[in-house]
Amino acid sequence: MSGEPEGRRERRWREVHDRVYGAALELFLAQGFVATSYDEIAERADVARKTAFNHFPRKIDFIGEWGQRRRSQVESTLRPDLAEGADTSLLLRHYFEQLVKINAAERPLTRRMFGAWRESGGPFDADIGDLAEVITRMIAEGQRLGQMRRDVEPRRAAVLLYSGYFGTLFDWVAGTDAEPPFDLQDALTFLLDTVLPGLSTPGE
Amino acid sequence: MSGEPEGRRERRWREVHDRVYGAALELFLAQGFVATSYDEIAERADVARKTAFNHFPRKIDFIGEWGQRRRSQVESTLRPDLAEGADTSLLLRHYFEQLVKINAAERPLTRRMFGAWRESGGPFDADIGDLAEVITRMIAEGQRLGQMRRDVEPRRAAVLLYSGYFGTLFDWVAGTDAEPPFDLQDALTFLLDTVLPGLSTPGE
Repeated sequence: MSGEPEGRRERRWREVHDRVYGAALELFLAQGFVATSYDEIAERADVARKTAFNHFPRKIDFIGEWGQRRRSQVESTLRPDLAEGADTSLLLRHYFEQLVKINAAERPLTRRMFGAWRESGGPFDADIGDLAEVITRMIAEGQRLGQMRRDVEPRRAAVLLYSGYFGTLFDWVAGTDAEPPFDLQDALTFLLDTVLPGLSTPGE
Repeated sequence: MSGEPEGRRERRWREVHDRVYGAALELFLAQGFVATSYDEIAERADVARKTAFNHFPRKIDFIGEWGQRRRSQVESTLRPDLAEGADTSLLLRHYFEQLVKINAAERPLTRRMFGAWRESGGPFDADIGDLAEVITRMIAEGQRLGQMRRDVEPRRAAVLLYSGYFGTLFDWVAGTDAEPPFDLQDALTFLLDTVLPGLSTPGE
């Protein structure tokens, strides 16, 4: 419409999008999710309030993008492991290990985003989220490869891992920014050590 | 103050409380949690609006009492099992089995209450709820009796069971009132069969 080349328009859109997103997260971190207004986000991002709304129509969309970016970040580190025939238990361990690393590295932000997420539906909202889908697919693939027990419904196994992961995370975000109540990596190792043997075929 | 005997005052209070609670649950079931107003609850219970507010200051208090009543109901059926030295895994199985029975018997109400609960903080709100405390105590007792592995932090094990239970329930309330997407008892049996062996001492 504007006669601008498509590539440049997209780059601009993406640049503004990232700026609004970055400004919002800085404000959530500094003053909390609920206390942050669109006016403040727009001002910090140096865009019109309307522009901020165009990119993120509801505040919860910031949480959605935050979760999506984290999952993409984790998935990019797993590419090499996704080779045909990779060990499913190991793959799941790597996956959760990376998620834990990001959460632990950004504990103050994680605490604010998780609090806000819980108040707006949380991990059990409607479709139980993309992460459950990712895990379901990994377990189904493990069954195809004969590494995971085939008498287990992949979705049930995925929901157990998914719920245990978020239950542990919500327990971990209690306390203060500075002091986690327990070591998150240890807790996830316990979870996987407890659950994975029951999902794997004997000898695996 | 009124000169009425204490016992009669308490009975009256309890009678009104139960009537308000009952009226609210009937309305939640018939038209949903969000769509139900205090005016409607008060009218159906035949009390003043102010009285309904006195008994349940916030709508979420109905959900709190609903959860509390279910847990009491389950705990009353478990009394005989709570004898000194009872098998912890069996006790946990009975506990969850009773919870599942109540949920499955009241699927339409469970669906409405769970939806409303999720929107107002859900199972991961603040203290992660009484149920996690109950399970933590059962596991700690199992460790004391030498039935449960002592290198496991009871709270971590409880959070895994608690989260897996609620994750499964939130997956189960999807679909319609008439058609659950899977058998809840089977799903809980899978969960316990998968998790409990990892918590028990070898040979138990």
